[in-house]
Amino acid sequence: MGQVAAELRERVYRANQELAESGLVHGTFGNVSGIDREAGLFVIKPSGVSYAEQTPDHMVPISLETGEVVESRFRPSSDTPTHLELYRAFPCGGIVHTHSEAASAFAQARLPIRCMGTTHADHFRGDVPVTRPLTREEVEGEYERNTGLVIVECFRKGGISAEEVPAVLVAQHGPFTWGRDAFEAIEHARVLEYVARLETRVRLLAPDAPRPDAFLVDRHFLRKHGRGAYYGQR
Amino acid sequence: MGQVAAELRERVYRANQELAESGLVHGTFGNVSGIDREAGLFVIKPSGVSYAEQTPDHMVPISLETGEVVESRFRPSSDTPTHLELYRAFPCGGIVHTHSEAASAFAQARLPIRCMGTTHADHFRGDVPVTRPLTREEVEGEYERNTGLVIVECFRKGGISAEEVPAVLVAQHGPFTWGRDAFEAIEHARVLEYVARLETRVRLLAPDAPRPDAFLVDRHFLRKHGRGAYYGQR
Amino acid sequence: MGQVAAELRERVYRANQELAESGLVHGTFGNVSGIDREAGLFVIKPSGVSYAEQTPDHMVPISLETGEVVESRFRPSSDTPTHLELYRAFPCGGIVHTHSEAASAFAQARLPIRCMGTTHADHFRGDVPVTRPLTREEVEGEYERNTGLVIVECFRKGGISAEEVPAVLVAQHGPFTWGRDAFEAIEHARVLEYVARLETRVRLLAPDAPRPDAFLVDRHFLRKHGRGAYYGQR
Amino acid sequence: MGQVAAELRERVYRANQELAESGLVHGTFGNVSGIDREAGLFVIKPSGVSYAEQTPDHMVPISLETGEVVESRFRPSSDTPTHLELYRAFPCGGIVHTHSEAASAFAQARLPIRCMGTTHADHFRGDVPVTRPLTREEVEGEYERNTGLVIVECFRKGGISAEEVPAVLVAQHGPFTWGRDAFEAIEHARVLEYVARLETRVRLLAPDAPRPDAFLVDRHFLRKHGRGAYYGQR
Repeated sequence: MGQVAAELRERVYRANQELAESGLVHGTFGNVSGIDREAGLFVIKPSGVSYAEQTPDHMVPISLETGEVVESRFRPSSDTPTHLELYRAFPCGGIVHTHSEAASAFAQARLPIRCMGTTHADHFRGDVPVTRPLTREEVEGEYERNTGLVIVECFRKGGISAEEVPAVLVAQHGPFTWGRDAFEAIEHARVLEYVARLETRVRLLAPDAPRPDAFLVDRHFLRKHGRGAYYGQR
Repeated sequence: MGQVAAELRERVYRANQELAESGLVHGTFGNVSGIDREAGLFVIKPSGVSYAEQTPDHMVPISLETGEVVESRFRPSSDTPTHLELYRAFPCGGIVHTHSEAASAFAQARLPIRCMGTTHADHFRGDVPVTRPLTREEVEGEYERNTGLVIVECFRKGGISAEEVPAVLVAQHGPFTWGRDAFEAIEHARVLEYVARLETRVRLLAPDAPRPDAFLVDRHFLRKHGRGAYYGQR
Repeated sequence: MGQVAAELRERVYRANQELAESGLVHGTFGNVSGIDREAGLFVIKPSGVSYAEQTPDHMVPISLETGEVVESRFRPSSDTPTHLELYRAFPCGGIVHTHSEAASAFAQARLPIRCMGTTHADHFRGDVPVTRPLTREEVEGEYERNTGLVIVECFRKGGISAEEVPAVLVAQHGPFTWGRDAFEAIEHARVLEYVARLETRVRLLAPDAPRPDAFLVDRHFLRKHGRGAYYGQR
Repeated sequence: MGQVAAELRERVYRANQELAESGLVHGTFGNVSGIDREAGLFVIKPSGVSYAEQTPDHMVPISLETGEVVESRFRPSSDTPTHLELYRAFPCGGIVHTHSEAASAFAQARLPIRCMGTTHADHFRGDVPVTRPLTREEVEGEYERNTGLVIVECFRKGGISAEEVPAVLVAQHGPFTWGRDAFEAIEHARVLEYVARLETRVRLLAPDAPRPDAFLVDRHFLRKHGRGAYYGQR
């Protein structure tokens, strides 16, 4: 550990502060983590400590291999095993969990957030899926770990790329997003909430509105991602 | 009185200021109280004094036994008799009344706030009920006291635990919440408004969405409450 | 004029500044006026001057008898003739016009804001009515004056007391409110917007929800108004 | 170039800062441009540079004749070809593109924003139209330029005056507005979002509400525009 963990703790601390200021979380809810894959550990916020009280020292390193806390006297977020399973399955550098209002409502309504326009397509190449509910065994057993496994199952069974759709709704719970690092994961959480608000309005105003053509979705997604991207400065 | 009342007045004053900053109340509406059961009195905000003008001295002590004002030249909130009946019936340490928008709309619509997800289950173990309307006799008699009695009746007849569901909607009026002290009661008022917003969205997006399984609700409620709780630092 | 107008201008200036900070108006929209019935004049904001640029000197005195500007080089709000007719017909001391979102939507939807709960009844003893649309002759003639006359007709024909219901929605336009002075008129504009938000939610969540009993509405209205009022300090 | 471009860059820079503070854009989304028709060039914000990082020097001049960048090391907004086609077809001095929530939802729902009241009529003399979706050829070819051409087609085929209705919704994308200069275009973007919010409420509360009479719409539009205008100071 040492230097690597210190830098990562600092970054994850700043990301949690940014999340707190984003309006996407309430009280001690929500969490951000970031991973150093070379060092084999990720760092996550502590459980039940308000964002205002947190310092970099509160951030808890977790071993990617064992899932155990590494040299910290703090207990990690209760959602840590969910993050662990996502890091094991998805090639991402940071993960965010919020209870943001519009996205959580879709999770509670058990509806995907459909890709209905270019704001969505700029970030997510298709619908943001909602998982199946967990079974009694999954809930009463290793609940938080099983939450992660059910997310991974949702993407595998649905043939969805975690790189092209870096977000999911856990049924009756709320959203998780991820990205290349903790800050991009937060940006995806912000955009997810925004497109959930747009999609709410569309479902209420015109439930039968036609979807955008696939070539429009691809144009927007690929304008910002991959080899042909032409957005931004070079 | 003396020292006990002075400390409680200070705490209830701070709680009312926190409520004013919460966005849950408007003008002079809403009120917070806190109780000292050993001293046999609770303290509540004065009637019709704006939050900005209030000082600890404005907070009015009330005898739990007689319901009378104890050594104060201010008139207590007109809702004082409602608080009195709730303190007599429920084992709580603080009570809040607001007209917060989403929760009041459910009260006006005469609909409970159903437990549709984990954000709700983290705080309330089941639906937040709505009372029956008061009768003409109840309204034209001791109206505010009868409001308290109708809340208590709602929980007794419905077999609802006031500790597991520390919130209610008074029909055509608005929400009351309670907690271990005045600050937890405010936190419950915040969360109630939030889950009312979520539930509004669910009812509009997917009125027939299935409810979460009881084992999921219990898992979340018990993760934070009671002997098996494992949320937060120890 | 002189002293009377100077004091009234100062008060109406402050009221317009309060309106600007209320979030109920946009850009140069909206206006507040206040009257001195002994002096026979009311004062209103100028037309098309942003709230930030206004000074007390910009406020324009208007004769209640003639409707003419009294000693000012500024043009009064284009809605001045509406205010004039309301002052002539209703026993009020201040008038506010806004395009606040929820209330204006009811005006556009041609729906009254029904009295569905105690927050409404605390301020308005019954539904807030919506006028009939103006005829072609009324629109193409003295449009702003006719707007005032149609409001007065709405209350007279509907048997509504302007003191008990100090608010109206002009069809396809927006709300006007009034009160004992300009500041109470602003408070009524704030509450109107709030109950319009509540009523929007009720109509979407439970369009057939029963109305509150008349004895509940009366209890709340009379708790704050008239001889038997028992709200506030004495 | 030189002096002309420097002044225009400064103005367009300030307009982009105003847009950033308006709440109508998110992250690096959205853009404002302004034109100097005598100099034959317009200036637009750079691509993918956050509003906080921008300086006047980042603003990119574009030739109205060739559509090419004029003396700048920055890449212009990816939407530049859309602005170019609008400047060529419409007699305006500034253009704004946002993804503002309510207006974008109408674009995604493929619904026009109907003129349902006087707030709308004060700024837009009739419905704000929604374009047809672009074809595969249009999307896979010069996508941003074709977006501009489809907007122009929408107005030409619909017989709509770009001066009387300075706003459009691009299907499944979002709004563009324009005005006499960049600042009026922003004002139109603000009002468009506001009337989109009003219209959302009307569609949900009373989908069959009658439209205002044409003489009411004309009275309001002409009260502020054209020879007979009588709003504001002279």
